[in-house]
Amino acid sequence: MDEANKQVTEKSQEGEKPRDVQDRSSISRRDLLKLAGAGGVGLLLGSVGVGGVWAGTAKLAAPTASTASNADPKQVIPFYDAHQAGIVTSAQDFICFAAFDLTTVKLSEVKDLFRRWTEAAAKMTAGQPVGGEEDQQSMPPADTGEAAGLHPCRTTITFGVGPSMFDARFGLGAKRPEALADLPRFGGDSLRPEWCGGDIGVQVCADDLQVAFHALRNLTRLARGVAVLRWTQEGFQRTGGSGPAGETPRNLLGFKDGTGNPDIHDKQAMNDIVWVQPSKQPAWMSGGSYMVVRRIRMRIEVWDRSTLSDQEATFGRYRSSGAPLGAKNEFDPLALDAKNEAGQPLIPLTAHSRLAHGEQPAEKVLRRSYSYSSGIDRQTGQLDAGLLFICYQRDPRTQFVPIQQRLAKRDKLNEYIVHVGSAQFACFPGARQGGYIGEGLFE
Amino acid sequence: MDEANKQVTEKSQEGEKPRDVQDRSSISRRDLLKLAGAGGVGLLLGSVGVGGVWAGTAKLAAPTASTASNADPKQVIPFYDAHQAGIVTSAQDFICFAAFDLTTVKLSEVKDLFRRWTEAAAKMTAGQPVGGEEDQQSMPPADTGEAAGLHPCRTTITFGVGPSMFDARFGLGAKRPEALADLPRFGGDSLRPEWCGGDIGVQVCADDLQVAFHALRNLTRLARGVAVLRWTQEGFQRTGGSGPAGETPRNLLGFKDGTGNPDIHDKQAMNDIVWVQPSKQPAWMSGGSYMVVRRIRMRIEVWDRSTLSDQEATFGRYRSSGAPLGAKNEFDPLALDAKNEAGQPLIPLTAHSRLAHGEQPAEKVLRRSYSYSSGIDRQTGQLDAGLLFICYQRDPRTQFVPIQQRLAKRDKLNEYIVHVGSAQFACFPGARQGGYIGEGLFE
Repeated sequence: MDEANKQVTEKSQEGEKPRDVQDRSSISRRDLLKLAGAGGVGLLLGSVGVGGVWAGTAKLAAPTASTASNADPKQVIPFYDAHQAGIVTSAQDFICFAAFDLTTVKLSEVKDLFRRWTEAAAKMTAGQPVGGEEDQQSMPPADTGEAAGLHPCRTTITFGVGPSMFDARFGLGAKRPEALADLPRFGGDSLRPEWCGGDIGVQVCADDLQVAFHALRNLTRLARGVAVLRWTQEGFQRTGGSGPAGETPRNLLGFKDGTGNPDIHDKQAMNDIVWVQPSKQPAWMSGGSYMVVRRIRMRIEVWDRSTLSDQEATFGRYRSSGAPLGAKNEFDPLALDAKNEAGQPLIPLTAHSRLAHGEQPAEKVLRRSYSYSSGIDRQTGQLDAGLLFICYQRDPRTQFVPIQQRLAKRDKLNEYIVHVGSAQFACFPGARQGGYIGEGLFE
Repeated sequence: MDEANKQVTEKSQEGEKPRDVQDRSSISRRDLLKLAGAGGVGLLLGSVGVGGVWAGTAKLAAPTASTASNADPKQVIPFYDAHQAGIVTSAQDFICFAAFDLTTVKLSEVKDLFRRWTEAAAKMTAGQPVGGEEDQQSMPPADTGEAAGLHPCRTTITFGVGPSMFDARFGLGAKRPEALADLPRFGGDSLRPEWCGGDIGVQVCADDLQVAFHALRNLTRLARGVAVLRWTQEGFQRTGGSGPAGETPRNLLGFKDGTGNPDIHDKQAMNDIVWVQPSKQPAWMSGGSYMVVRRIRMRIEVWDRSTLSDQEATFGRYRSSGAPLGAKNEFDPLALDAKNEAGQPLIPLTAHSRLAHGEQPAEKVLRRSYSYSSGIDRQTGQLDAGLLFICYQRDPRTQFVPIQQRLAKRDKLNEYIVHVGSAQFACFPGARQGGYIGEGLFE
């Protein structure tokens, strides 16, 4: 158990209020105390991201309520931890993603921003308002208030910096990780600048959209004069309680999405796939992870005119069950060598699942995607909907890039999708109480 | 109890399957049967919209689970009813609103569209896929599939027609209701054509965003060749389970929104305010209601720089409790005549709550609004967020219009909001089994 969690547990056992929630008077506080006081520590520690994976020696806390569905809205995912939350956290129902551009050229102001953001994120993920007591009628309220009375809803806020952070402005060039190389241009990309890049990426996830919006809005407000929004995208999954617990959610093409994802409970796999190891440079990324974000527009109207067998050949899976073609159950392995009666591969050579399937474990990524629907495309009158693809990995050059190169060349799904946005961010390791996110880079 | 509900109840009591859910094989069906078979009829009838208000004589079904919060995702709001569902239904967590323009000039094709939409809406609101069994591998699937396995989530689909439906194209001019007069231009309006109007308005609401999106997408698909999307807007409220049950949700300005709304359980009030009475012309609108939709952008960044006392003076209420200024509790009456020590009105003359407060019952409307967040405004870099204001009434000319005229002239809130979209629709009465929505107008 890592230091931060140990602290919470010990204090709770002593019947004391955890430091973070002292002297607050809100429903959230009462709920937190109830949890902390009544043996609810398991719930506080329920995030699968909890447990000191960083040092590689500590034990994982027993995960509870970790299947996301029907999650308790009062559940808090601890903000201070060895790793940032929101990466190996089981996916919440909603995302508000934002890329920011810095308007300052002073590194000191960037540091201050991340200090303010850290403090605010710790409060908001605990279900508390930003700032102090609001009895100053003559001042703008520190918190914008629309989440007052709402539960923490498993909010996580995950911060990273893009390649542009290492340009001439801040003198950080020497600290740029090699793994944060510019992504190559992939065949078929139709990237639009308004959906690309950003000095800073912030992933806010929560089981309530209003709670997630509130967090992003207050972070944006705290950045005033230092950074501005470059692009944002909201997204959703089927809501936790809306289907059978633990089922793989479906994307907007109607297919289950995430079946082949590695198990976030498998500590070894997460070390192998997601977390930057201490042996790698730069040291400030040790315990962090690289995020790739792609805004993938789906040509829904075209897809909807294709036959079911075409659709299933495209994915290499049955739509209804999610099972690989020729197999019975969703989690059956892909029979990549099996042939049909005509001697053709049962799973076509161009099938998405075949090509996305990494040849080696080193090529796997942890996907954490959300569907999006953003009204209609004014030029075509069609729905602007698709997937906000997000994945985490130790090194995009050997994980996301080779997978996407294969997909870009041959994936039959390319007839129905188009990548319109792209960004990548080096997501810092977690912060400890008293420290701040990004400290290792900025100090 | 009206005819449609009586039917369900009787069949359930006989242990028979309700006709609607026969011969389906899905999780939804099993759940429905479980509900219907095990004394769950109260739940099936849980919608506050159920009960024959139309005839003005029948008793209201006892409402259960009607406070929206923590609603059972398996709950079905019956589609076939005297009134359309989604009007006096307690607000679900999400909305997908769409305005369509007809591309056909044949009334017969419009009729067919509404027949297809009625059938599909009845299925989707019951948690069933559109169309028949999907064993035809060589055909595009009848249903797009992304809601497979998800519960009904209290889905409602509400249809109306705009003033443009009565132009020269369809020969319906003589049937245009006088109450569907063009809205006057209000001071301060900054309407943009891409957020205005539409031949047809469709309000899809559900407690799950993916379920709501699925419904709207499939309706759009069924309209192919006959109608196209003109504009759409998604919206949200704080999710049912995220806060204490029954609390008034907060808008994105941080204030409780809906405190003064009439009680949807008050049958007399709903007849007085919402439902077009049989004595009024045209007959095809008897039991229907007029919907006004306004897309109201909030100048969030400006609001966030104003002081708490300014904000509270703007609304005439305290932010934290929602109580009127000078009062203690949210539902205390507005003390419109009270003065402060300086002899000034306690609730300023320009306060939103004072001006929105109808002088007479006849001026009340039933609000059913949702917050929206649609990324950033490309011109300003600020959040494009606000309120999708929706209200229902018997006659906008004597209800919405005078209220909005007062607000447009004097509301202090106008410093922080701007109306960018506007539409109105005559929402039909409900359909009976075997009939279709709009039948009274089109036949």
